[in-house]
Amino acid sequence: MCQLLGMNCNVPTDICFSFTGFRQRGGHTDEHSDGWGIAFFEGSGCRVFLDPAPAVASPIADLVRQFPIHSTNVIAHIRKATKGPVGLENTHPFMRELWGRYWIFAHNGTLKDFEPRLRGDFSPVGTTDSEQAFCCILEALRHAFPEGEPPAEGLVELVGQITQELARFGTFNYLLSNGQYLFAHCADRLQYIVRQAPFTTAHLVDDDVEVDFSRLTTPQDRVAVIATQPLTDNERWTPLEPGELAVFCDGDRMA
Amino acid sequence: MCQLLGMNCNVPTDICFSFTGFRQRGGHTDEHSDGWGIAFFEGSGCRVFLDPAPAVASPIADLVRQFPIHSTNVIAHIRKATKGPVGLENTHPFMRELWGRYWIFAHNGTLKDFEPRLRGDFSPVGTTDSEQAFCCILEALRHAFPEGEPPAEGLVELVGQITQELARFGTFNYLLSNGQYLFAHCADRLQYIVRQAPFTTAHLVDDDVEVDFSRLTTPQDRVAVIATQPLTDNERWTPLEPGELAVFCDGDRMA
Repeated sequence: MCQLLGMNCNVPTDICFSFTGFRQRGGHTDEHSDGWGIAFFEGSGCRVFLDPAPAVASPIADLVRQFPIHSTNVIAHIRKATKGPVGLENTHPFMRELWGRYWIFAHNGTLKDFEPRLRGDFSPVGTTDSEQAFCCILEALRHAFPEGEPPAEGLVELVGQITQELARFGTFNYLLSNGQYLFAHCADRLQYIVRQAPFTTAHLVDDDVEVDFSRLTTPQDRVAVIATQPLTDNERWTPLEPGELAVFCDGDRMA
Repeated sequence: MCQLLGMNCNVPTDICFSFTGFRQRGGHTDEHSDGWGIAFFEGSGCRVFLDPAPAVASPIADLVRQFPIHSTNVIAHIRKATKGPVGLENTHPFMRELWGRYWIFAHNGTLKDFEPRLRGDFSPVGTTDSEQAFCCILEALRHAFPEGEPPAEGLVELVGQITQELARFGTFNYLLSNGQYLFAHCADRLQYIVRQAPFTTAHLVDDDVEVDFSRLTTPQDRVAVIATQPLTDNERWTPLEPGELAVFCDGDRMA
């Protein structure tokens, strides 16, 4: 199993605290050492850092931990290779452009006997089932809405339909974002927390580090964090149900 | 004017030496301080580092200079904003996927009254003329070859045709790569050098640094470096002619 981490906020926020704990799972507190990656949306732009080396020993991870990139949407992934060899082309998260926006995707789990016929709008570069699934989602979105991005309701409904179809092939925990919405689909393990005023102190599970969010935030700030397993041991995380698709926007879960 | 740097090699090579000089042009030896970026192909994968801050003061540039990523194709860009505000979404190089390969593009110059009608296969995320031109090139390639990448001859011919059309709109120095070929188009300033055995010592223009390539290479190595202006002051660089499109593969210029 891989590890997923997502963040969706109403104001640009740095992910240094969560990432400090998360990276320990890339070869230290967990066995996932087949590469890692993280994508940060900043406005409509997106930065993706990828490293096929273990996160715990990566100079790029050092940079990310120390360099407080402020972002409203972040997706990170630590890989335990199941399908596709270890290599940069198979390192999550993956990025494509659709409707003039970047889309980012990372997957935890394995899809079996999954050989989709793609039309060529989006083609995998690497050899993972995950990148194939990402291309399937984007292709379906483009063909359903060739004129451009639909209102949220139509978008969420279609992502839900495609997700159900793809989930039949195996374990399909994923995070997907277009820089505005963050979609989180749970197959068997994904939990989230929404931090908002009054902010308190949080303590990491994977490292003896704590942070007092009340000193770093304003009362209007709202931040949703989604992860394979809770990153903190003194906060209440909400597990998603198997088959549940949660959509986050402006730091909160959409109805 | 922006600064371009490209490298195309027959074996994975680090660009630390060239980048050491190049980054000085991002706010130190030249005025271009509106962001910078660099893309490294490693196999079919690609890493892109982008920073809307000046290269000379960027912690990401420190990482890139110190972390010897070995790549067969590199494209770097330092931006002097002419069209589109300073921001991550307008920072070169740009990346898209076509035919199951990543494509990378960076541009120096300005296209005027350029408002192409795009079909939607590739849409700009930012507001630069450069990203529009990149989308035009990829759209033309996809529609001419919907089944997949053609042999080199057809690819080079079509890139040449689209380039001529786009170059009518203004100054169109660019670097384009799909991880195998590196296309370099000269509007008014672009020079290259092919380093191969017997290797010698090179000395940077922008910084008092020299390197003895004979100690770092094997006799089979071949590296083409392309830049807006020569990066070294004791080697012979070849200027491209205005309107000339050079294509590099395996570290050498193709006939």
